[in-house]
Amino acid sequence: MLVKAFIPAHITAFFFPRFHDDPLKAGSLGAGINLNKGTNVFVVTDEGAGRLVHVIFNGKPVKRSAAKISYGVAEEIIPPDFRGDVEIWQYFDFPNGHGFGNSAGGALGTALALAYSFKNKTLLQAARVAHKHEVIHGGGLGDVIAQLHGGLEMRIKAGAPGIGVVDNIFFGDYKVLTVPLGRLSTKEILRGEIIDKIEVNGERALEKLLKNPTPENMMHLAREFAEGTGLMEGELLEIAQELDKVLRLPSSMVMLGRSIFALLREDEIPRVKEVINDLAIEKYSICEIYNSRPEVGRWIG
Amino acid sequence: MLVKAFIPAHITAFFFPRFHDDPLKAGSLGAGINLNKGTNVFVVTDEGAGRLVHVIFNGKPVKRSAAKISYGVAEEIIPPDFRGDVEIWQYFDFPNGHGFGNSAGGALGTALALAYSFKNKTLLQAARVAHKHEVIHGGGLGDVIAQLHGGLEMRIKAGAPGIGVVDNIFFGDYKVLTVPLGRLSTKEILRGEIIDKIEVNGERALEKLLKNPTPENMMHLAREFAEGTGLMEGELLEIAQELDKVLRLPSSMVMLGRSIFALLREDEIPRVKEVINDLAIEKYSICEIYNSRPEVGRWIG
Repeated sequence: MLVKAFIPAHITAFFFPRFHDDPLKAGSLGAGINLNKGTNVFVVTDEGAGRLVHVIFNGKPVKRSAAKISYGVAEEIIPPDFRGDVEIWQYFDFPNGHGFGNSAGGALGTALALAYSFKNKTLLQAARVAHKHEVIHGGGLGDVIAQLHGGLEMRIKAGAPGIGVVDNIFFGDYKVLTVPLGRLSTKEILRGEIIDKIEVNGERALEKLLKNPTPENMMHLAREFAEGTGLMEGELLEIAQELDKVLRLPSSMVMLGRSIFALLREDEIPRVKEVINDLAIEKYSICEIYNSRPEVGRWIG
Repeated sequence: MLVKAFIPAHITAFFFPRFHDDPLKAGSLGAGINLNKGTNVFVVTDEGAGRLVHVIFNGKPVKRSAAKISYGVAEEIIPPDFRGDVEIWQYFDFPNGHGFGNSAGGALGTALALAYSFKNKTLLQAARVAHKHEVIHGGGLGDVIAQLHGGLEMRIKAGAPGIGVVDNIFFGDYKVLTVPLGRLSTKEILRGEIIDKIEVNGERALEKLLKNPTPENMMHLAREFAEGTGLMEGELLEIAQELDKVLRLPSSMVMLGRSIFALLREDEIPRVKEVINDLAIEKYSICEIYNSRPEVGRWIG
């Protein structure tokens, strides 16, 4: 059987972590956006004599040590008595480590496609397995539950799917500009000194967004957070300032990647493209907000 | 501004109530199905001198006393300082009182369309207002949160959206046959002696479904519940038994309405239609399972 899952890319606008010894209670609070590009996972199951699980990233097989999260999810969902081959093909629309939730996308896509194939877990049960392995291996804290809900999301209670709570903001007809510029290690940031500033600024931003839950307010708060924590500086800040000249709402930094994002309307696209050309930026996308749950189903052709 | 919301019809397969003095903690547990037919709500807002709210059911204006839930939701979401006219047009694909969640569909559609129009509430905040008025006025306990999630759903923790928890079962390519036969008062059933049987049988069914979360198991448990509680008897049971002769899975009774539903695949449709013809049943639908969140947005043409 061939099953496909699409998981939206998820970019965080602002956040603060909630660490916990129980990975199902660990998570993050904050706000972010799900995109109509992201991770496509194809799972092929073939019954046979042995038991072999393969994970393939963008067409290239990866070792267990380089894909601990996906292998961990797979071993937990594939029934212990299953004999045969399982191939897990993951394709990413955005580069790894740039803050687009690829790791969680792969984990959640793997979990949902396997649960669909083996009919042994519910949506939340499968998503919790993805969240758990993301947390244990430091992939991320809040991407899985955010991707499970879609839309322009606010994580208002931390934790795994079914434990944490995600709310959504109505957003009308905004599109999302994304400019991936470089990698940033989530692990290092979360262990660094900056974490205190993230806690204070993140909590304040969430409070303010809950009082005035609009996409416009979210972007103002995102930028306030990005600059207030000191995360957004140097080249990132300079590029954002150039973009701001032709945008109605402030652009901001993707948490956590060396990437920029902005909400914009159709009529702002031509001038934004001019600025991007002038800055000699080669890679960027203009996406739609993905406002549904992940898609999972049998893949035919 | 004209805003449209689509809320799926929701049929309950089995359930048990959780009463609570706080309407946000009241709810029901159980399982059910969301359909691609349901309630369409159109909200027109026009600024003006006075403040007038009108609710219209299937094209006919209704008095406040006959639409307490919708008026209650509207008054809570329309900002206190708004001056102008608000028209709330609700169209129902299924007849009222037959167990298709029309009341919650109208409440939730009104809440989401108004929150979208006034940009003053999040998805969960708006949905909670709908849940609250549904509970207070005895419209239902679990429909709002079920409709907010879509799909083939299991309510595993009772309460309003953001408090209760809904899980989903992967269902592949089933369609849903619905046969609305008559009205049934939810209020009377919940106050009657049958409530003890509902508690015992409902709790057992949910436990069993969580252990083996498949659509097939859900239908077996639904029928066990419907007959075990004594709710499904007489003509309803006779019709179901006729349908069962040509179906792979047992049909069951919609909770709570004098209506029958069944899961079926494409290849079962012709024989089902023959049986329905032989029984001289005039009204029935074959729907898709609606596997998304409600749609809310500006309505153009």
